[in-house]
Amino acid sequence: MDAEILAVGTELLMGQIANTNAQYISSRLPDAGINVYYHSVVGDNPVRLKDAVKRALQRSDAVIMTGGLGPTQDDLTKETVAEVLGRKMVLNEECLKKIEEFFRRTGRVMSENNKRQAYFPEGSIILDNGTGTAPGCIVETDGKVVIMLPGPPSEMKPMFERYVMPYFLSKSEYVLHSVYVRIFGIGESMVESMLMDLIDAQTNPTLATYAREGEVTLRVTARCRRDEDPEPVLKPVIDEISARLGDNIFSTDGRSLEQVTADLLIKKGVSIAVAESCTAGMICSRLGDIPGISAVFNRGFVTYSNEAKVENLGVSMETLMKHGAVSRETALEMARGARKAAGTHIGVSVTGIAGPGGGTPEKPVGTVFMALSDGAYETCRELHLWGDRAKIRNLSALNAFDMIRRYLLSKYGND
Amino acid sequence: MDAEILAVGTELLMGQIANTNAQYISSRLPDAGINVYYHSVVGDNPVRLKDAVKRALQRSDAVIMTGGLGPTQDDLTKETVAEVLGRKMVLNEECLKKIEEFFRRTGRVMSENNKRQAYFPEGSIILDNGTGTAPGCIVETDGKVVIMLPGPPSEMKPMFERYVMPYFLSKSEYVLHSVYVRIFGIGESMVESMLMDLIDAQTNPTLATYAREGEVTLRVTARCRRDEDPEPVLKPVIDEISARLGDNIFSTDGRSLEQVTADLLIKKGVSIAVAESCTAGMICSRLGDIPGISAVFNRGFVTYSNEAKVENLGVSMETLMKHGAVSRETALEMARGARKAAGTHIGVSVTGIAGPGGGTPEKPVGTVFMALSDGAYETCRELHLWGDRAKIRNLSALNAFDMIRRYLLSKYGND
Repeated sequence: MDAEILAVGTELLMGQIANTNAQYISSRLPDAGINVYYHSVVGDNPVRLKDAVKRALQRSDAVIMTGGLGPTQDDLTKETVAEVLGRKMVLNEECLKKIEEFFRRTGRVMSENNKRQAYFPEGSIILDNGTGTAPGCIVETDGKVVIMLPGPPSEMKPMFERYVMPYFLSKSEYVLHSVYVRIFGIGESMVESMLMDLIDAQTNPTLATYAREGEVTLRVTARCRRDEDPEPVLKPVIDEISARLGDNIFSTDGRSLEQVTADLLIKKGVSIAVAESCTAGMICSRLGDIPGISAVFNRGFVTYSNEAKVENLGVSMETLMKHGAVSRETALEMARGARKAAGTHIGVSVTGIAGPGGGTPEKPVGTVFMALSDGAYETCRELHLWGDRAKIRNLSALNAFDMIRRYLLSKYGND
Repeated sequence: MDAEILAVGTELLMGQIANTNAQYISSRLPDAGINVYYHSVVGDNPVRLKDAVKRALQRSDAVIMTGGLGPTQDDLTKETVAEVLGRKMVLNEECLKKIEEFFRRTGRVMSENNKRQAYFPEGSIILDNGTGTAPGCIVETDGKVVIMLPGPPSEMKPMFERYVMPYFLSKSEYVLHSVYVRIFGIGESMVESMLMDLIDAQTNPTLATYAREGEVTLRVTARCRRDEDPEPVLKPVIDEISARLGDNIFSTDGRSLEQVTADLLIKKGVSIAVAESCTAGMICSRLGDIPGISAVFNRGFVTYSNEAKVENLGVSMETLMKHGAVSRETALEMARGARKAAGTHIGVSVTGIAGPGGGTPEKPVGTVFMALSDGAYETCRELHLWGDRAKIRNLSALNAFDMIRRYLLSKYGND
C-alpha cells in the first residue's frame, strides 16, 4: 500500500515550523508495510486544498492528512475531504458530548465554533483525541482511505499510535524492517564503491546511502510478511557490509557517534578529561548530553587563551612558542595535562583554527590537531577541514569522538 | 510570484530527517515578495520525480528544488529537470576544475562519479557551492524558473542567501521587509497581552508572535515597493514595542541571545571565565561559536565532579557538604573561583540537576542555580525548569547568557 502525507497549514508555508509530523509518520509507516511516496504541504486555502486532496487520491492508496481540524474558520480539512468524496458532513453526538466534557474538565469556556469539531464526513471512523479537543477520523472510499489527524504533534502522535498504526497493521500482509548502518571516517562515494556489487544486486533487502556532515548512513531495508522474522534476510547482508567496512561502522542500532563513544567509556569504566581550544566546550557539552556520563566524565578545560593552556594543563611556554598553539606538540601536551590534572584514565584534546580569522599560509583555517593520552599510549590526528566555523568545529568534535571510540575498541574490544 | 519547494530524497520519505530546508526557504522568500503555496517531497525515483517536476511547473512560477545533486547514481535532479524541459546535459569545464581543486585541497581522492556534478541542463546559471562539492543551478524557461540547490542545509543555506535571494529580489516589484523582535524573559501570551492593541490594529506593518524554547519572537513585516524605504513604516511600531517591552528585547537585527551577549562583552572589553556543571560546556561552546570571542573569552571549566569544583575553582568542601553541589552558595563560589583562576573581569557559573536522575524532593530535576561575580558585585539566579535533559540544559545556558547580558546593560549601558 502506498501513502501520501498531506499537511495543511499556512504556518508551514511561512516557515514558522518544520513539518516534523511528516517525518514522524514516515518513520513509522514502513513498520506497517506502507511505502510513503509523497509528502505535500498546502495552506489553509479551500481551492488549493481541494486540488491537493484530489491529486493525492489519484496517486496514492492512503492519504494521511495532518492539520486543519481546529475550531476556527480556516480549519477546512474535513469539509474539503467531504466535498471531494461527495459526502455530507454529519454531527456525531457522542463526540460533541466528549468535547463539552473536555471543556468542563479543563475549566475553559467552550465557544460555539468548537461544535464544528464534532462534524465528520458521513461514514467516518472517529478517532478520539486524548490530549486535545479535535478528534481525527478515517474515511474509506473505493479501496482507498483518507485519514485526518490534528496538527499539533502532541495530539497527532498519540492518535497515530493508538489508531492509525493498528488500522494499517490489520490490513497489511507485508512490512518493512530497516537497519541504519552509520559510518564515520570514509565518504559517501567511497562507501558506495566499496559496496557497489551489493548495491547493484539489491532486491531484498534494498540498500541506500546518504551523507550528512561528517557521517554516512547506509539504510538496509528488508520486506517481509507480517509474521516473518526479518533476521535471515537482513543478517547476511549486514554481516557482509560489516566485514568490508569494519570499524568505520560505529552503530547499527540508531545510536549517534557521541552516544556510542560515551556508552563504551561507561561500559569499560574508562574515566576521561577533555581539553578543548577551538571546539571550546562542544565535546564536553555532547558528553554532558548523555544521562549517566558523570560516572566517567570527570571534568573539562576550555583553554581558549595560551595562559589557560599553561596554567590549567601545564603546556610548556616553549612548546607554544616553538610550535604554536595549533600543533601536534601542543595537542599532545594538552591531552597529557588534562589527564594529569583530573587523574583520569585518558585525556583528550583538540586545538585548531576554526576561522574565519587566524589562518596563515602554513596553517590555514581548518587546520586542527587532536590527541589522546592514557599515560602509556598516545595518538594524534591532524585534520585539514573545509567549511565555515560551525562546520569545522562540528567536524572537529566528531573526529575527537571517533578517535576516542577507535582507541577504546582497539584497547578493550567491543564486548 | 508563486513558488513551490520540491525536495528530493528518500531519506525524507523514510522519516530519517525533517524537511528543514523547506522551512528555511519558506521563511526567507516572503522577504523577496514571493508567496510559497506548496511544499512537496518525492524520493529518488525517476518516474515520480519527473511527474512532480512537471506538476510543480504547471502550478507555480518558481520551483525551488533541494537535494539530489550529489555524485551518486540515485542523484537525479538535474537530469530529470533537463528531460522535462527538453534540454541536453552539458559539461561545465570551469566547474569541473573547481571540484577537482576542492578534492586536491582537502586531500581526498576524487572518484569518477564526482564528475557528474559538473554537468548541468543547457543554459543553466551555475551557483558555486562554497561549503561542499555539488554546485546548484538556475534554469529559466517560458517565464518560469527552476532552481536546484544541494540537500545538506550547510550547503543549501549559504547558496540560497548568496544567489537565490538576490535573483528573486532583482525581479520583484513589491517586497516584504521583516524585523524580528526577539524577546527573552517573558512568555508569548504575556507579550501578546502587552501588545494586544497593536496586534488588533495591524495593517501595514503586520505583527505575528511565535514561541520557541526559551524565546519569543515578534515578526513585524512591512510591504513596500522595491525602491521604497521601509523605515517610516517600521520604525514607529518598533519604537512603541521597544518602549513597552524594554530590556526583555535582546535584538531586533536577527542576532541570537548568545551573539548579542558576546558582542556586548567584546564591545565593552569585559573578559570572562565560565564554570559549568550541568550545562557541561554548552555556554563555553556557544561563546566559541562567535568569531573574535577570543579577545574576551579567556577560559572555561567544566567541573562535572565535586573534586573538579574544589581543585579548579576553589569551591570549599564545607559548602559542598552543607549546601550541596546544586545550591546558591556553590554557584557563587564557582563564579568567584572561575574569575580568580582566570584573572578576568567576570566569572559566570551554572550548576543544576538536568535529569533524568539526580532529583530529590527538595531539589527536583530542573533545579538550577547560576551566578555572576565581578569581584565587587554578585548576582545569582535560581530556576525551576520543566522538560527533558536537553531542554533543561538549553534553558539553563540561555538564562546564563541573559544574566550576563542584563548585567552588562545595567553596568555599561548599550552605547
